[in-house]
Amino acid sequence: MNPAPFLQLDRVIHEKGRLAIMSALAAAPELSFTELRELLQMTDGNLTTHLRTLQEAGYIAVTKSQRDSRPLTTCALTKAGRDTFAGYLGLLEQIIAQTKNF
Amino acid sequence: MNPAPFLQLDRVIHEKGRLAIMSALAAAPELSFTELRELLQMTDGNLTTHLRTLQEAGYIAVTKSQRDSRPLTTCALTKAGRDTFAGYLGLLEQIIAQTKNF
Repeated sequence: MNPAPFLQLDRVIHEKGRLAIMSALAAAPELSFTELRELLQMTDGNLTTHLRTLQEAGYIAVTKSQRDSRPLTTCALTKAGRDTFAGYLGLLEQIIAQTKNF
Repeated sequence: MNPAPFLQLDRVIHEKGRLAIMSALAAAPELSFTELRELLQMTDGNLTTHLRTLQEAGYIAVTKSQRDSRPLTTCALTKAGRDTFAGYLGLLEQIIAQTKNF
């Protein structure tokens, strides 16, 4: 077994809630807080915490605006987030490839 | 995006250190504590903690014996561990399949 891909897994992305958020954002130009919450069945608090962690890592951009006089929060992957996520998926593929044979 | 495979990821296995341990044990009938530690480049304390978590979940069996008058600890996947790990890998494959297109 080659331990390298395990050691290289990005802890920020690997956590399953954040992995789901990154995957959802990879599939859309942007998503609102409400869309993410409903898609991923998370609580407000849980989603807020994960988004802050992803934002602090530079993986997502969070934009606060107003629509119809109501606050609107939208999230999108940054270039760094997209690149890091692609690398993460590559590591997962290596892990699956080397474990599937057993 | 289908959130189901993310929600189903087993937290005990998903942590990257334990994922590495499960993968190593899936590739061998059993491994000693020393073999695991050297293969995965973990500290004694870190490996001990992860092994206890996996043992409490019923995913590995830990056997303590003596070889040449020295204590020997060996670890092996249980049937439940092997089955749960196979299910986990299947979920990872679903996640990769649905994110690769973007």
